[in-house]
Amino acid sequence: MSAEPGTVRPGGRTARVRAAVLRAAGDVLAEQGFDRLDLADVARRAEVGKTTVYRRWGSVTGLVADLLADMAEQSSPREETGSVLGDLRANASLVQRTLADPRQGALFRAVIAAAACDERTAGALRRFYEVRVAEWAPCVEQGVARGELPAGTDARAVVRAVSAPLYYGLLTSGSVPDAAAAERAARAAHAAAAAGVFVTE
Amino acid sequence: MSAEPGTVRPGGRTARVRAAVLRAAGDVLAEQGFDRLDLADVARRAEVGKTTVYRRWGSVTGLVADLLADMAEQSSPREETGSVLGDLRANASLVQRTLADPRQGALFRAVIAAAACDERTAGALRRFYEVRVAEWAPCVEQGVARGELPAGTDARAVVRAVSAPLYYGLLTSGSVPDAAAAERAARAAHAAAAAGVFVTE
Repeated sequence: MSAEPGTVRPGGRTARVRAAVLRAAGDVLAEQGFDRLDLADVARRAEVGKTTVYRRWGSVTGLVADLLADMAEQSSPREETGSVLGDLRANASLVQRTLADPRQGALFRAVIAAAACDERTAGALRRFYEVRVAEWAPCVEQGVARGELPAGTDARAVVRAVSAPLYYGLLTSGSVPDAAAAERAARAAHAAAAAGVFVTE
Repeated sequence: MSAEPGTVRPGGRTARVRAAVLRAAGDVLAEQGFDRLDLADVARRAEVGKTTVYRRWGSVTGLVADLLADMAEQSSPREETGSVLGDLRANASLVQRTLADPRQGALFRAVIAAAACDERTAGALRRFYEVRVAEWAPCVEQGVARGELPAGTDARAVVRAVSAPLYYGLLTSGSVPDAAAAERAARAAHAAAAAGVFVTE
């Protein structure tokens, strides 16, 4: 195939530019936080024209919203282990490893902090978690179908209950979750669900 | 008693100045966030000399650390209802009402966001939660002594488990917790504790 102007597949180049820009944006967020995020700096790091970045993302909040959309698309599919406790353990372990990873953990802390004072970032973050919770909810639904959890269990509430203590410790006390915390989070959510705490009318 | 200079009780005046300055600092945090906190602005709002504020608190992070220390001192004592589930419900309700209060909820979100990028604020926030968790832990210890929960239950872990879903929803999805969320949080922590999830060796 020739690579003359006009014959380059636009999807290919556009996707490469997006990947480079989002990678650079994530690096700045993880290293320096939301307040230091600057489109010109991101363009320089990504080796992409400043005009392209301004035209495509428009603002820092637009860039963070796209980063979160990309993270939701790229993130791991759910695991199915055959039991709801096993699946919740797999979910807890995934969340724990993400938060304990230096780059990813710092990135999430930066975005959550930004969401506290920026409505657009808050909306993008909310959508990110909706996608992730929806990805894992079928594990709980299958557990209900197999009779491991009571009928009427709110599957999304159970998935959120697994994440809650891992994020809470990190955000309020700076304690990076370890494997034991993940195991406790999965078992706690499972015990509460088994006791019918998440049954809705 | 005369009120000549030198005879005014220093505790009285100092305490009044501190209360006015911390009130003003909390107002700015709740209304505008950590980034807008400025010692000169706080002094003006509190009707206190700028020099006094600079000399006593030194920096914005010093001021926030003192605000958190004051919040820990001022916050409500634990309730004792006679059962561990009742006590956890009382704790969940207190946390829920705090986070749902417009001023307090905004203040906590601002301080948690600031803790993500400032080490001194992170330390002050961690100490705040240590004080609050230590205040409520005896409810769980009494529950263990009464045989309502298994021996070896980590009382602080149970108290933290009550708060976790309430904070998690607010911080990651902007969902202000309601009374139903508080009830679910208390019951989930209780069910997990009763199942032995928080027993440590």
